[in-house]
Amino acid sequence: MQNRPPTIGEYLLKKLESYDIDHIFGIPGDYVLRFYHLIEQSPIQHIGMTREDAAGYAADAYARTKGMGAACVTYCVGGLSMVNAVAGAYAEKSPVVVISGAPGIKERGKDALLHHKVRDFHTQQRIYEQITVATALLDEPFAAFNEIDRVLDAVYRYKRPGYIELPRDMVDIHGSLYQRPSTGGHLSDPDTLDAAVDDAIDYINHSKNPVILAGVELHRFGYQNKLIRLVEEKRIPVVATLLGKSVMPEAHPLYLGIYEGAMGREEISQFVEDSDCVLILGAFMTDVNLGIYTANLDRARSIYATSERIAIRYHTYEEVMFGDFIDGISSSKLRRRRKQDLGWAYPTPQPFEVVPDAPLTVLRLFQHLNELISDELTVIADAGDSLFGAVDLRIHQHTNFISPAYYTSMGFAVPASVGAQLGMSNTRPLVIVGDGAFQMTGTELSTTARYGLNPIILVLNNHGYGTERHLCEGGFNDIRNWNYSRIPELFGEGRGFHVRTEGEFDTAIKAALADTQHFVLIEAELDKLDTSPALARLAERMSGKI
Amino acid sequence: MQNRPPTIGEYLLKKLESYDIDHIFGIPGDYVLRFYHLIEQSPIQHIGMTREDAAGYAADAYARTKGMGAACVTYCVGGLSMVNAVAGAYAEKSPVVVISGAPGIKERGKDALLHHKVRDFHTQQRIYEQITVATALLDEPFAAFNEIDRVLDAVYRYKRPGYIELPRDMVDIHGSLYQRPSTGGHLSDPDTLDAAVDDAIDYINHSKNPVILAGVELHRFGYQNKLIRLVEEKRIPVVATLLGKSVMPEAHPLYLGIYEGAMGREEISQFVEDSDCVLILGAFMTDVNLGIYTANLDRARSIYATSERIAIRYHTYEEVMFGDFIDGISSSKLRRRRKQDLGWAYPTPQPFEVVPDAPLTVLRLFQHLNELISDELTVIADAGDSLFGAVDLRIHQHTNFISPAYYTSMGFAVPASVGAQLGMSNTRPLVIVGDGAFQMTGTELSTTARYGLNPIILVLNNHGYGTERHLCEGGFNDIRNWNYSRIPELFGEGRGFHVRTEGEFDTAIKAALADTQHFVLIEAELDKLDTSPALARLAERMSGKI
Repeated sequence: MQNRPPTIGEYLLKKLESYDIDHIFGIPGDYVLRFYHLIEQSPIQHIGMTREDAAGYAADAYARTKGMGAACVTYCVGGLSMVNAVAGAYAEKSPVVVISGAPGIKERGKDALLHHKVRDFHTQQRIYEQITVATALLDEPFAAFNEIDRVLDAVYRYKRPGYIELPRDMVDIHGSLYQRPSTGGHLSDPDTLDAAVDDAIDYINHSKNPVILAGVELHRFGYQNKLIRLVEEKRIPVVATLLGKSVMPEAHPLYLGIYEGAMGREEISQFVEDSDCVLILGAFMTDVNLGIYTANLDRARSIYATSERIAIRYHTYEEVMFGDFIDGISSSKLRRRRKQDLGWAYPTPQPFEVVPDAPLTVLRLFQHLNELISDELTVIADAGDSLFGAVDLRIHQHTNFISPAYYTSMGFAVPASVGAQLGMSNTRPLVIVGDGAFQMTGTELSTTARYGLNPIILVLNNHGYGTERHLCEGGFNDIRNWNYSRIPELFGEGRGFHVRTEGEFDTAIKAALADTQHFVLIEAELDKLDTSPALARLAERMSGKI
Repeated sequence: MQNRPPTIGEYLLKKLESYDIDHIFGIPGDYVLRFYHLIEQSPIQHIGMTREDAAGYAADAYARTKGMGAACVTYCVGGLSMVNAVAGAYAEKSPVVVISGAPGIKERGKDALLHHKVRDFHTQQRIYEQITVATALLDEPFAAFNEIDRVLDAVYRYKRPGYIELPRDMVDIHGSLYQRPSTGGHLSDPDTLDAAVDDAIDYINHSKNPVILAGVELHRFGYQNKLIRLVEEKRIPVVATLLGKSVMPEAHPLYLGIYEGAMGREEISQFVEDSDCVLILGAFMTDVNLGIYTANLDRARSIYATSERIAIRYHTYEEVMFGDFIDGISSSKLRRRRKQDLGWAYPTPQPFEVVPDAPLTVLRLFQHLNELISDELTVIADAGDSLFGAVDLRIHQHTNFISPAYYTSMGFAVPASVGAQLGMSNTRPLVIVGDGAFQMTGTELSTTARYGLNPIILVLNNHGYGTERHLCEGGFNDIRNWNYSRIPELFGEGRGFHVRTEGEFDTAIKAALADTQHFVLIEAELDKLDTSPALARLAERMSGKI
């Protein structure tokens, strides 16, 4: 008996552990209880959220900080509640494994109307096929282990979500250890790689003022050290996309700032667009990321390398892996540049002076925050002005900024803070979230309290959907005001502040930084038409399209 | 110009009005702002919820009370957040129209990475194809009106959700009034109808003790008066399924109670299963509905009629419409039965006597409630023991009981109360919801406060996922406790009670009934292992399958 292969449930848990997954986020339900029972007996800790979508956001943030995340839910009522969160992980390349319980194979009679079923037994899987790189229904013991391997391998390789459906009567069935032969195919073709690298180096060496545009894939694939090495050894200055913010330590002397076309700072846009060689590494060419198509990047002057595509000016190379390409161009053949004076890019900010009675403004609030950001904090910015305002925050360490900067789903940040703090235990999240987004998922602070986490939550209360007011105003942009700072009373834990002036904010944020025992929520009262400079520019460009 | 056809946005709103839709539930976003602007100028009122899934639940309940409902959201981040709510409406046959904004057709360049996009521009529509009866992308002005007609017609006819995607640059484009010729095909074939009706009448007339099993379709299609006429004229007793609860006024002398196999009351199961002719009208043969497959209904003794299928014993009839069939068998050829004494089915309950210091129990709580239910209240029961405990509540009027009794998605009830009260303005919702479900969507009471609604919310606090404890116990069934009764402080409106004894509950519920100015929330503290009798029976039957 001791050589018997593990059960399907056991094998799945062992594989998740092998990917360094220590926590699974989710909510139990009858079709997944048997597997939950197994989780409880395993070294993996279950983290109970209040809603399934929140479990999806937490698993996403966990994946962004730890390399892979997992959420486990019940059939349809659970899985279909997580569709948006998983879609966001797909769009922004976050490797999340979704495990869903399901009716047992033996229960699936013809047209049986079991509870939680929608149209037929494959409805949920078909939906997940639209938002994952791989799906598997574990309905066959002989194939189950290989199916698990296939999905997890795809999640790991493509940094996108995968879906595993586990019928409840298969959890305790022993699988078969027969290994499907590897199909290979994930290595660079050596000659093509050499050709691509020589081509790129030749082009860069002949350029006058190259610049690197660093994107989020460098973070997802763990290539941040490759980037730093390339930048430092060759002295090529670097900018980041919005989604890639903090992929490079922002205090680094060769880091210039965020490039986002006409939405961003003028001097950075000009520097990038004047370059005769933009080396785009791991960046998605998305609209918000690049200033709503105001970026002006000429293919004739670009090298574009991601996990999906390697292109040098007008031609592309196939069978070249992204990581090999970065290693290749970092070779001694690429010449080292002379020192440049880049002080213009990050001028030393004026020390921020609090004007105690001045009403809060978005601009001043972020300038104030910028003085207080330390290495111990991870900034998690929700969609809207929480994100746009945070663009200019200077993040010291890499991976200390998390935001749904492309998919921009409101309500991401509070549940994401749960996943981020569990995935990166030596950090404290600083969540920046608007009032509209907070109403969507703010009650997930309950989970924060349950597991002894201690985020600081800054609610920017501009009384409605502020970003939209600048695009098209109407009563539909209003929301009911909440007494946000009284949230701790609902959960019986945490601390709340309601601030209106710079002095009150200064007191509150300093108290929050000093009080590490539990979550601290600061509601910052803002004028409903106040915006960050970036949002003002964005609104100007987008309102024509509404 | 005055004869110019309306714009696509205008036409869509006019058509919604023609289906008696006065409210649209949703949250704005940049891809749908232009259409929101049109809503604001129309007679239809926009109801802003705090989350999109809540908008879906509200539209579902509105559809159940008013005949059709609508939700309007933005692309992907909005639409994909509503998938579970719409799936529930599909499963339980609720006619909900989903309108989603989308990127403009002109913006959709090859592979353009616009924000909120997941995989490609059709991802959301493909997902909705799995959970609706019809979808349309309004990308062509000439076809747009006919496409709108097609989707709304399907929603109305099949009582299931439909999906309309409206690119933002199409809202103000004028459409074409050319009418697609009707394909007909929704009428009974007269000869087949006659044959089916004669067959059924013959079978019923030869039976000794027929009984009607009434299901939710009678409500969805507005056939409740047909049912009452049939029951009263022919004196055939009637039972209802769980999902069909309140389809028949429960105080009616010919109404016996809920049939749910071995989960239900013994004497009712026996009466139905001893019948030599069970006339099943508009019922889904689902598991929870019928006591987790413990129902014992023999096809040899059944007539089964729904909008999808007409079967008499072992044979079926096609091209026979459900409503025509009911009208047909109600003819004078069906003989009237003699009066029966059915007093055994609904014994006059003992007057409930409050034991002031007795701790609350589920059984006693529902008995207590049963005394207080009046015609002015609509009971909305969430999944779990809120539903099972409510089975024996005696609902006086029809359509005064709403629950996701088949799909059983937790968190339905609070947002549903918003839709139900707006759809049926002369009623006051009595929401019965567990603590786990309340944590999912309870903050939607904010919307209640915003629009001046006044539900009574009874939170059954058994400290965790109580239904699951009886199937498989573990730490994952625990949740963090909230101070539920302090919710009014968060929203600055409403009234809260926290009760532990029968006396305290009596005081609170009477105060709630008297206080009609705003929502009143009563947190009822229960033992974590306490259950209704129905849940105890359910747990016994289901735990073997976990």
